[in-house]
Amino acid sequence: MTNPFPIPPEYREVSTADLAMIASDLPNVADRIGGPSSALHVTEVSDGNMNAVWRITGPEGSVIAKQALPYIRVIGQSWPFPVDRITYEHRALSVQARHVPQYLPRVYDYLPDLGLLFMQDLTPHVVLRHGLIAGTHYPKLASDLGEYLARSLFYTSDMHLGTVQKNMLADAFSGNAHLCETTQDVVFTGPYWDAPLNRITQGQQARADALRADVPLKLAIAELKHIFCTSAEALIHGDLHTGSVMVTAEDTRVIDPEWSFIGPMGFDIGALLGNLLLSYFSQKGHTTGADDRGAQRKFLLDTIVGVWTAFDTGFRQLCRTKPGPLLHQKVLSETDQGAFVDRRLAAIFSDTLGFAGAKMIRRIIGISHVEDFEMITDIPLRATCEAGALDLARQLVLDRTRLAGPQDVVSLARQIDGTYPARNRP
Amino acid sequence: MTNPFPIPPEYREVSTADLAMIASDLPNVADRIGGPSSALHVTEVSDGNMNAVWRITGPEGSVIAKQALPYIRVIGQSWPFPVDRITYEHRALSVQARHVPQYLPRVYDYLPDLGLLFMQDLTPHVVLRHGLIAGTHYPKLASDLGEYLARSLFYTSDMHLGTVQKNMLADAFSGNAHLCETTQDVVFTGPYWDAPLNRITQGQQARADALRADVPLKLAIAELKHIFCTSAEALIHGDLHTGSVMVTAEDTRVIDPEWSFIGPMGFDIGALLGNLLLSYFSQKGHTTGADDRGAQRKFLLDTIVGVWTAFDTGFRQLCRTKPGPLLHQKVLSETDQGAFVDRRLAAIFSDTLGFAGAKMIRRIIGISHVEDFEMITDIPLRATCEAGALDLARQLVLDRTRLAGPQDVVSLARQIDGTYPARNRP
Repeated sequence: MTNPFPIPPEYREVSTADLAMIASDLPNVADRIGGPSSALHVTEVSDGNMNAVWRITGPEGSVIAKQALPYIRVIGQSWPFPVDRITYEHRALSVQARHVPQYLPRVYDYLPDLGLLFMQDLTPHVVLRHGLIAGTHYPKLASDLGEYLARSLFYTSDMHLGTVQKNMLADAFSGNAHLCETTQDVVFTGPYWDAPLNRITQGQQARADALRADVPLKLAIAELKHIFCTSAEALIHGDLHTGSVMVTAEDTRVIDPEWSFIGPMGFDIGALLGNLLLSYFSQKGHTTGADDRGAQRKFLLDTIVGVWTAFDTGFRQLCRTKPGPLLHQKVLSETDQGAFVDRRLAAIFSDTLGFAGAKMIRRIIGISHVEDFEMITDIPLRATCEAGALDLARQLVLDRTRLAGPQDVVSLARQIDGTYPARNRP
Repeated sequence: MTNPFPIPPEYREVSTADLAMIASDLPNVADRIGGPSSALHVTEVSDGNMNAVWRITGPEGSVIAKQALPYIRVIGQSWPFPVDRITYEHRALSVQARHVPQYLPRVYDYLPDLGLLFMQDLTPHVVLRHGLIAGTHYPKLASDLGEYLARSLFYTSDMHLGTVQKNMLADAFSGNAHLCETTQDVVFTGPYWDAPLNRITQGQQARADALRADVPLKLAIAELKHIFCTSAEALIHGDLHTGSVMVTAEDTRVIDPEWSFIGPMGFDIGALLGNLLLSYFSQKGHTTGADDRGAQRKFLLDTIVGVWTAFDTGFRQLCRTKPGPLLHQKVLSETDQGAFVDRRLAAIFSDTLGFAGAKMIRRIIGISHVEDFEMITDIPLRATCEAGALDLARQLVLDRTRLAGPQDVVSLARQIDGTYPARNRP
């Protein structure tokens, strides 16, 4: 298949040997790892669906190199994809570094001709999704991610910026349109018809068919897709699932903003909460004789409440301390501004729930699934776990304006989960 | 005051003598007017607030020349304004010419270095606002403007375009940010505090004070301002009042899209309906012994219903015949698509009413007023007319999600107008 996207003329897929040479020539990278290229050790550590990733280790330290391929890595040349997505990742990391450097990998260098980004090696961090599957608690996770969301979204929105600044930011990301279109397709369209690459767990066909025939749901999803297309609220990460977060007990980093664009805030918050809910519903597939995962389920629900609460608190605080022209002090008193922010947060919460539900559904009946469920080898049990997640997701989408706060979501999740007993639970 | 906006290096304010020379050198212009520059007659016909406008007449015809000045014409050098606004006007006319050429002035040439645009001389057209003040009926007006709105908005929206095309369009207009900021200020901010350039009719202070202390109103206006800033629905005209429409009994043309950007559809429709409502409330100030303006008032209310109905019909038709990726046939049946479009139109109607109300209020207690009221020399009568308009406007803003259709607006307008008897009516 011919690649329809422009590829930089100097572009080539780099090899491990190339990388040692390239890295040792870049002062900011060489400073981190030390030694000549012959002293460097390069290992491929590709993990996500999209890109090639290496760890480069030298006498003094290590860095991560990430290259965008002209196609989707896990699929191959048959699905061409724009190399310049990594330019937007680099750009998003640069913008966000002004507001949330403590929650990002540090960037050492970027070579646009090769679509090659050199970043901090986050060690001993693990991918949050894997940590949650393993049953690990992260006590700082909720407050860290809530603050990341509050600051990264507020500072790039009309709540803070004037229109000239906001439009310049929008211009810097509008070229990432093919990735936006792909998101629209895989999240809001593909799951709702028999798209050729959709997958489902065995035994799930009747549920998938029911969702694909569910007109109120499909209309609500179309409305969410319209919001995704038209609501230019803030610079969003665009793919903030639990595979885009790296954690230790003390530290939280958000990686991979290659899908970033100026979009609705609720899409980021919803992606995160939706994936935490997927983890919640998957837990009964990960029980062992020693661990019934009750504590982990509680931790996940607490984290959902905690993320929203920290976001809400941080966002309100920033609206008070760093207001832009939209919060005009001559027109709105401090109390009135608070009331306006209340309304904005209610709207963001409603979007959040809708997008959370859409993200959950697409990970169960769409093209791309999550390890939280895929690692459950007992297929009927996996299907039971997924069924609860689908029920909640549908209700989040349909009732997104009626649920008042995260506690309502948690109650609903508990209630629905209770209706699906785990036949295989010890 | 130093001008903070870039001015093209070759820019100068042109004179009538310049214009004859320039026009005769431009083949597309010379073709329209004929003759050497010595045979041309140039008359300044500036009318709007912003720009300088001339009619250039030659042996074979006439054209209009319009130059953007580096300041607001009616205010002067003390209010600098970007010359490149006319680049966006030219660009908007070019985009719209693909969809609604029959409702636009034809463009003959554009000289960006001089911010100078050569357009069709619309004769014998008059400015719609003046025609309405004079008591003239325009039988085709409602269907023409409804079709202009349906086509110009649909074809530049996500209902038709894919994201790549939509983002390219957004990029082409994002540089017009200063004009967006000015709109935000004069429509949504200035009227709601004692901004230095606000004006009111004598006797109106208590009403202005009441509106400026009306917290529910100000919160609803802040929400509308947020929609204006973030809702990237379509390429909108951005200033579609009755002074931006030129008419005869048979022909309707929309001029002056210098405020254009990718914004909410309801801002254009609301500007138009709001200005028709201002005309309605002004009519009792324009009665004569021979004409009580009853027929004109009915014509205006019929036009309001007719514009919305024609927009609604045309927009639905285009969604059926030219759907874009948002209206995905594999997901939504024809009936479901209809239901989705119903919801979109309900949301657009609600935005329309809010913006209509905001535009009405700003023309009575803000910086820039309308001749519909200003030409009423009996000041108490003018204040009475304005009072009805303000009452309706406030209700449109507050009840914008509760009014179901244009007929509700018309009933409300009639009812409110009835509570303000014209003391001076003959």
